[in-house]
Amino acid sequence: MATLEEALALIKRGAHEILVEEGLVAKLKEERPLRIKAGFDPTAPDLHLGHTVLVNKLRQFQDLGHEVMFLIGDFTAMIGDPTGKSATRPPLSREQVIENAKTYEHQIFKILDPEKTTVLFNSSWMGEMSAADLIQLASKHTVARMLERDDFDKRYKGGQPIAVHEFLYPLVQGYDSVMMRADVELGGTDQKFNLLVGRQLQESFGQKPQCTITMPILEGLDGVQKMSKSLNNYIGIKDTPDEMFGKLMSISDELMWRYFELLSFRPMAEIEGFAQEIEQGMNPRDIKFLLAEEIITRFHDEAAASKARENFIARFQKGAMPEDIPELTLSADEPTIPIANLLHKAGLVQSTSEALRMIQQGAVRIDGERIEDKKLQIEIGSCQVYQVGKRRFARVSVV
Amino acid sequence: MATLEEALALIKRGAHEILVEEGLVAKLKEERPLRIKAGFDPTAPDLHLGHTVLVNKLRQFQDLGHEVMFLIGDFTAMIGDPTGKSATRPPLSREQVIENAKTYEHQIFKILDPEKTTVLFNSSWMGEMSAADLIQLASKHTVARMLERDDFDKRYKGGQPIAVHEFLYPLVQGYDSVMMRADVELGGTDQKFNLLVGRQLQESFGQKPQCTITMPILEGLDGVQKMSKSLNNYIGIKDTPDEMFGKLMSISDELMWRYFELLSFRPMAEIEGFAQEIEQGMNPRDIKFLLAEEIITRFHDEAAASKARENFIARFQKGAMPEDIPELTLSADEPTIPIANLLHKAGLVQSTSEALRMIQQGAVRIDGERIEDKKLQIEIGSCQVYQVGKRRFARVSVV
Repeated sequence: MATLEEALALIKRGAHEILVEEGLVAKLKEERPLRIKAGFDPTAPDLHLGHTVLVNKLRQFQDLGHEVMFLIGDFTAMIGDPTGKSATRPPLSREQVIENAKTYEHQIFKILDPEKTTVLFNSSWMGEMSAADLIQLASKHTVARMLERDDFDKRYKGGQPIAVHEFLYPLVQGYDSVMMRADVELGGTDQKFNLLVGRQLQESFGQKPQCTITMPILEGLDGVQKMSKSLNNYIGIKDTPDEMFGKLMSISDELMWRYFELLSFRPMAEIEGFAQEIEQGMNPRDIKFLLAEEIITRFHDEAAASKARENFIARFQKGAMPEDIPELTLSADEPTIPIANLLHKAGLVQSTSEALRMIQQGAVRIDGERIEDKKLQIEIGSCQVYQVGKRRFARVSVV
Repeated sequence: MATLEEALALIKRGAHEILVEEGLVAKLKEERPLRIKAGFDPTAPDLHLGHTVLVNKLRQFQDLGHEVMFLIGDFTAMIGDPTGKSATRPPLSREQVIENAKTYEHQIFKILDPEKTTVLFNSSWMGEMSAADLIQLASKHTVARMLERDDFDKRYKGGQPIAVHEFLYPLVQGYDSVMMRADVELGGTDQKFNLLVGRQLQESFGQKPQCTITMPILEGLDGVQKMSKSLNNYIGIKDTPDEMFGKLMSISDELMWRYFELLSFRPMAEIEGFAQEIEQGMNPRDIKFLLAEEIITRFHDEAAASKARENFIARFQKGAMPEDIPELTLSADEPTIPIANLLHKAGLVQSTSEALRMIQQGAVRIDGERIEDKKLQIEIGSCQVYQVGKRRFARVSVV
């Protein structure tokens, strides 16, 4: 059993903001399983490591003995984009919602304990709600407060249209907390406003308000922009072990510590020990190995993690990868940049023609893997280790 | 059968604005009974002549062969004031709604033809509506457009709270037009925004948009402020014949023409003839008699109208009421002004003590009726003819 101090330290690990901490402490002191809510959009069920930051925090709550309520926001997804303006948000059918929910479960149960997880759908109560009830709900919030939400404020001032129903969605999300009697709700920092609507609605329904915990948005492989599929700087949790290993080894040492804090379940004390070992001369690459193996074990298994490490080492023949690889960032005007230009700009060759010659000779490797395609295009968002010959290395982020 | 020109002239009589006239002409040319909508709030069913301006216009449509749909907005009234802030707007029960509706019917059928009138309740469709449907409806309007409505704009800029549900009510009112397939909707000038929401929603539901006709707000007896109970410058349609006669005789000649246009069913040509007769020397009082008799006949009967005229004439002994009564307006700092002060300020007496003496002698009359109470308080909003002795007269509005 963790002490209150230990529990609080674990909950705060990596968290951006807790509102309000005294309320959380009071709830923890009740020594009952708390109801921990997190809501997910059922339209995009393919998770990457960025999404798992929140799920990891849920897991930590489970380790402390609490109950996770994994809410699938299917009510709004089944309405779709009622403005009809966005072709990318067609309404989901009930069948699609259930299928997407299964995909979610399959993924989240690699992190969460199914015994301490309840999967809920907000259509169960929102589908029953009448227009009159929704009007009552809408009466509990003012237009001015809604317009305080950052994105609404920007759009209103910028003359971008906000449809009236968009003001209703935060109220629906808040009402979910009422129906779930949530003690704590987790969300990204961009969800802060909506989480606080939940607190307010619970109070107006005579419940103790939930505590809200916002988790930071995880940086992608480039260490700068948020991890996202569209920026191609992500690690999908369905990536192969070799892909995961290569991508994780490509991150900067600084980003490694961020990933340890938010993605690893190793105690912080142990992680701080690693930092000391590096100061005393240990190769950071070996610590990065530990992170990569933990992540791969979580989403595949231990054997897959060992094999991925072996494969990675084998790719870097004879331990030729140096301890300190110079890091640099290239900005691209186009969505991709030709490999020869990249090698030239990175200073690994004197000219693009030298680059092409070196590729032809089989002397160019990306993340330890020899490349043969002289017309290879490197995508924006990627961050890889480029090697020319035996000694020239650079870790290049394309932005 | 009226020609198109005659019909249009009758519809335009006294109307503030028609949007859009071409649409109305097109509908009139279809030569079918149009569906004319007007909505009423079931919370305050006691009508005064100000309310009847709209009902009179409905009656004119009936005379042109169209169908009136008298909508009782009971759905929102049954929700009440969900902010709970206003103690004056408790939710109505279904029984109260039905009772109030009967009171309405009793009153409006003194003007409307029951054969061409359908009374509807918007709870019939709104009561069935789900929260999901309401969200869809709300998606059809933007926050920015809602904030263009005059009163919302003022409140938002003035820092006065607007509850989110207040943005939903114009949509409900507009959806009523969709469900009623209204061809024309009438409302006060303050309803223009909501009427136009109806046009827009009908179009987005694939219907031809309704034409909207706004009617002016009727001035009260003082000829300045709008007729309202709280300003005490009204003629209730349940007033006695004598009350109605006295109040109508108290209005200025200028206001008489306004009342003729908006409250009388006499053709405009006939009314213009009256104006000519007055120019040629007729006593305006005799024309005012015609207006008063028409109104009293409508809400009571012809015999009551004749009797009220006789009573009125009898009160003004020996025809002492002059043709031209000086008119003046006094502003009061308090809700009431003592009669003696009023008579003094109006120049009818030299001092308040003379006023008190004249009252004691039975020489003071209000609207022809002798008064005895020296402490009589005259209310703001009133407009009455004061007489001291045989020759001193003034028509005084207190504002």
